[in-house]
Amino acid sequence: MEIAILLFDDLTALDAVGPYEVLKLIPEAKVRFVAREPGPKRMNGGSLSLVADCSFHQVQSPEIVLIPGGPGVSSVLSDPPTLDWVRAVHKTSRWMTSVCTGSRILGAAGILRGVKATSHWLTVDSLREYGAEPVHERVVRDGKIITAAGVSAGIDMALTLVGIECGEQRAQAFQLAIEYDPQPPFNAGSPDKAPKGIVELLRSRARTK
Amino acid sequence: MEIAILLFDDLTALDAVGPYEVLKLIPEAKVRFVAREPGPKRMNGGSLSLVADCSFHQVQSPEIVLIPGGPGVSSVLSDPPTLDWVRAVHKTSRWMTSVCTGSRILGAAGILRGVKATSHWLTVDSLREYGAEPVHERVVRDGKIITAAGVSAGIDMALTLVGIECGEQRAQAFQLAIEYDPQPPFNAGSPDKAPKGIVELLRSRARTK
Repeated sequence: MEIAILLFDDLTALDAVGPYEVLKLIPEAKVRFVAREPGPKRMNGGSLSLVADCSFHQVQSPEIVLIPGGPGVSSVLSDPPTLDWVRAVHKTSRWMTSVCTGSRILGAAGILRGVKATSHWLTVDSLREYGAEPVHERVVRDGKIITAAGVSAGIDMALTLVGIECGEQRAQAFQLAIEYDPQPPFNAGSPDKAPKGIVELLRSRARTK
Repeated sequence: MEIAILLFDDLTALDAVGPYEVLKLIPEAKVRFVAREPGPKRMNGGSLSLVADCSFHQVQSPEIVLIPGGPGVSSVLSDPPTLDWVRAVHKTSRWMTSVCTGSRILGAAGILRGVKATSHWLTVDSLREYGAEPVHERVVRDGKIITAAGVSAGIDMALTLVGIECGEQRAQAFQLAIEYDPQPPFNAGSPDKAPKGIVELLRSRARTK
């Protein structure tokens, strides 16, 4: 089972690495990190690089496709070779998935028209631009397209996908292997739960970017 | 504030990248990925590399040190240059932290004697070898040493550390930024919660490794 994870400069590493740690546990999985140009991709913040081993022509028919998000998404949205690849692999894939603002890449590739989808809470409503139906939930499945909310939601998305694809027992084993028994020290992980002042702070920062 | 994250071959990427996504949000943070020999470090599973930009002599007095775990830990335990670096930075750091089996590296460096500490649930009791007091909790703080349980626990650890170091409001803002509102689709993330058969499966696999 070939799993393609798209990399590009200025992505958010956890969007890719969270699901990677779950999906790589599928015994039949061959995970490929793919980019328009193979090599190290510099993350936002600058100090970390993830390496893409494969170019688009080396990964033409993956079963599972994962599109991460991050500040670099805005460049990808106007990059025809990447959008062409997303459209092409969508034709034969079993699953198209995204984390955080990666869903905007799915949208720009034209595959979210009429599709229920989510994104980071700051950007989910912008999915309407692509004809999608924004849903404020952590993991949203519509047919073979599964989108996750911001950054850390990719772990929940990957476990959901493993549950569907490989069965509940395997998903539970993977959850236990990565000891995913989350105990956040604060209760501020969504705009409904965080103090209003903090929600407003992040909204105003996002507006000025 | 210099933050050093140790890299080595065959580490578990999420151990490093989960806390990275939180700690990098500290406005004063300069995150350095450090290794005995800089360059790409291949993760277990083979398809992903993270790049270490810095050698040990380039990062001599970080404020925060993070040691990830993974299968590669067993090689690091018998690597004097790495253990020497851990001991050296421990002398001046504000915080020494680990995720998953990374705590065994702290132990082998001799800094867990008499210290309460944790690790992946499959290995936490082995911390006794290093004179530590094993604690079956997700995040364990003892003085300036904070250890986290398996893989995904690094996110909770990093938020805990930010809460202590930068205050609750900043930690809540970071939690909201990475939308850390976990909703695992199953309740199998710890050996107390997972079905017994799955716990036994993972135990027996660990024994035959």
